[in-house]
Amino acid sequence: MKYVRIDRAGTPVWGVLQGELVRTLTGAPYEGICYDGESLPLADCRLLAPCEPTKIVCIGKNYYDHAIEMGEGVPERPILFLKAPNTLNRPEGPLHAPDFVQRLEYEGELAVVIGRRAKDVKEEDFADYILGYTCLNDVTARDIQKGDGQWTRGKSMDGFAPVGPIVTDEVDGSDLAIQTRLNGRVVQQGRTAQFMHKIPELLAFITASMTLEPGDVVTTGTPAGVGTMHPGDVVEVEIEGIGVLRNHVV
Amino acid sequence: MKYVRIDRAGTPVWGVLQGELVRTLTGAPYEGICYDGESLPLADCRLLAPCEPTKIVCIGKNYYDHAIEMGEGVPERPILFLKAPNTLNRPEGPLHAPDFVQRLEYEGELAVVIGRRAKDVKEEDFADYILGYTCLNDVTARDIQKGDGQWTRGKSMDGFAPVGPIVTDEVDGSDLAIQTRLNGRVVQQGRTAQFMHKIPELLAFITASMTLEPGDVVTTGTPAGVGTMHPGDVVEVEIEGIGVLRNHVV
Repeated sequence: MKYVRIDRAGTPVWGVLQGELVRTLTGAPYEGICYDGESLPLADCRLLAPCEPTKIVCIGKNYYDHAIEMGEGVPERPILFLKAPNTLNRPEGPLHAPDFVQRLEYEGELAVVIGRRAKDVKEEDFADYILGYTCLNDVTARDIQKGDGQWTRGKSMDGFAPVGPIVTDEVDGSDLAIQTRLNGRVVQQGRTAQFMHKIPELLAFITASMTLEPGDVVTTGTPAGVGTMHPGDVVEVEIEGIGVLRNHVV
Repeated sequence: MKYVRIDRAGTPVWGVLQGELVRTLTGAPYEGICYDGESLPLADCRLLAPCEPTKIVCIGKNYYDHAIEMGEGVPERPILFLKAPNTLNRPEGPLHAPDFVQRLEYEGELAVVIGRRAKDVKEEDFADYILGYTCLNDVTARDIQKGDGQWTRGKSMDGFAPVGPIVTDEVDGSDLAIQTRLNGRVVQQGRTAQFMHKIPELLAFITASMTLEPGDVVTTGTPAGVGTMHPGDVVEVEIEGIGVLRNHVV
């Protein structure tokens, strides 16, 4: 299925995307699929981030080529960090950094939306805990991230996690083409088959320490090619079978 | 006022503590104080963490003596990190680390519970955004924290943030005695007047990047004397005018 979350007269509502129609639900898809009887043309919908995270768990340097470009070696284990819920942003939502940020950067990523409470997940069971796959832009104030040492502040500014446009369980997350474009120019390109730590391993690793809740997000790291954005820029993260997550820097 | 959050027949309820009585509220205190007409003896109540955080924002090394004991120098700016909401734990709640953790440590801290949405707070206005002060134990898997470099995993395991027993606006957070005891022995001792970055500065610094929500928690760092805990240990964080936050390691 393909899920979206839309703004219906000021209220966020989940829906199932069928062709160009959004059939809205009475609740979240991980509470059971219950249609409320309404349908809306996708073109008329304002999309929201298709998730409701209590936390966004992120992986540092999960593509070999990005670990090399960051110049800090390749980690043996997944390195976890968090983006707090204030970072959540919608498809087409504005990206804006505080004035003191000098290097605002994109990081296109494949993200997983959790569909079921998850603790001590076994690798072979990982699929039972996933609602589906989506795109995430791990927007980063690179100067702040490097200056602080801890990545929290540089990664958790308001609006620094656009997610969307849809979440789908109709793709195989283990080998998808991913591309980031800045003003139409391809700046990042990879395949999720290049992950150093694959999604089953990531879910097992995270849930050995932390319980994941339905609606939480786990994002999987970014390929090489990170770079800066400036006001006026348009950034797009496109993943095969999911679609394009587009945002404007203001 | 002194606020508590209690478990009333399986439902979390906020209350105002008056002497030894808890007068329960219809909602959260930051939505307005509206009594529901019930009173319960404090002694009969099971206390919960008196907060509802979308995020717990923490400060690394905010007491000079702890920065020195950690051997990594004194940071110029506050170093932020996050504990995710899965870390939340209650007074008297069990503390338990996964088997792979080798060094489980306590860190007694003064925490602030946010009472009003806060963005770009000016230092002189900080008090307008605070519901009150409470105790927090920033439980840490020290071996994981040091091994990972990023502090997220070592700090964000399930139950690693006991908070309570009450939150109060009747103390002046700028100079309170704080003490941590392990099995009754004093292991940390300090005064919040020793902060390198004081609470008004912390709220201004954090909200320059991140919007804080009512119910969120900002915790202020720990004094020297961190050390390990083992199953069977009892750890207590006591702050003048707030009370004792007690937890058992299992």
